[in-house]
Amino acid sequence: MVQEYKAEGTDFQGITRQELTGIFGERTNFNLRYFEIQPGGYSSLERHVHEHVIIGARGKGILINEDREIPIAVHDVAYIAPQRKHQLRNHGSEPFGFYCIVDHERDQPVRAI
Amino acid sequence: MVQEYKAEGTDFQGITRQELTGIFGERTNFNLRYFEIQPGGYSSLERHVHEHVIIGARGKGILINEDREIPIAVHDVAYIAPQRKHQLRNHGSEPFGFYCIVDHERDQPVRAI
Repeated sequence: MVQEYKAEGTDFQGITRQELTGIFGERTNFNLRYFEIQPGGYSSLERHVHEHVIIGARGKGILINEDREIPIAVHDVAYIAPQRKHQLRNHGSEPFGFYCIVDHERDQPVRAI
Repeated sequence: MVQEYKAEGTDFQGITRQELTGIFGERTNFNLRYFEIQPGGYSSLERHVHEHVIIGARGKGILINEDREIPIAVHDVAYIAPQRKHQLRNHGSEPFGFYCIVDHERDQPVRAI
C-alpha cells in the first residue's frame, strides 16, 4: 500500500512510502520499506541514532550525508551512520525509488538544519 | 567481495554470496547480503528459526517454501517464516540475483530433507 511519507510536516516534498515487511506480524529485528521520490522532490533533512541501509531500485537520486552528496543509482547500496544529517533528493527527470532497511526498534528522527 | 556461498557442503551449486552491510562495524540489528545463482544452480534446502526477507535483483528464480514454488523476479519481495523448509533455484538461462536480509543475531541453518 502506497502511503504518505509522513503524517504531517512541510520539510519534504513529492515522496511516498510503502512498508514491505516488519509490521505485518513478522518477528524480524528490521523493517523493509520502499520510498519513491518524484522529480524535484526530497525527504526530510534529519538525524537519528538508528542507522539506514539504502538500496537504489529505480532511477537516480542524491544522498546528502552531512557535507557529502552521494549519487545513488540502481543497485547502489549506501549506509548512513548514527546521527548523520541526511536527506534523499531527486534532481532527475524520472522517479527515484529506493529500498530502506532500518532496525524494527528505533528512535524518532529529529529535524536537522 | 564475492565469496563462496558456504565454506563447505555438497547440497548447493553455482551460488555465490556477498556480504554488503552488517559485519563491517555497523551496529544494525540486521545483515544485508547479495546472492547470485547461475543457471541450473541452487542454494541449500534448509530450515532455521530466523526469518528471511528476499528482494529479486537480477534475472528470475524460484523460491521453494515448504511445498510451494514461488517465482521471484526483479523487485519481488518474499518473506520466509521461521522453520520453513526453503531453497532458491535458478531454472533459467541467466544469472538470478537477490538481496537477502536476516537478523544480525541468528541461529544456524539445519539441512532439510
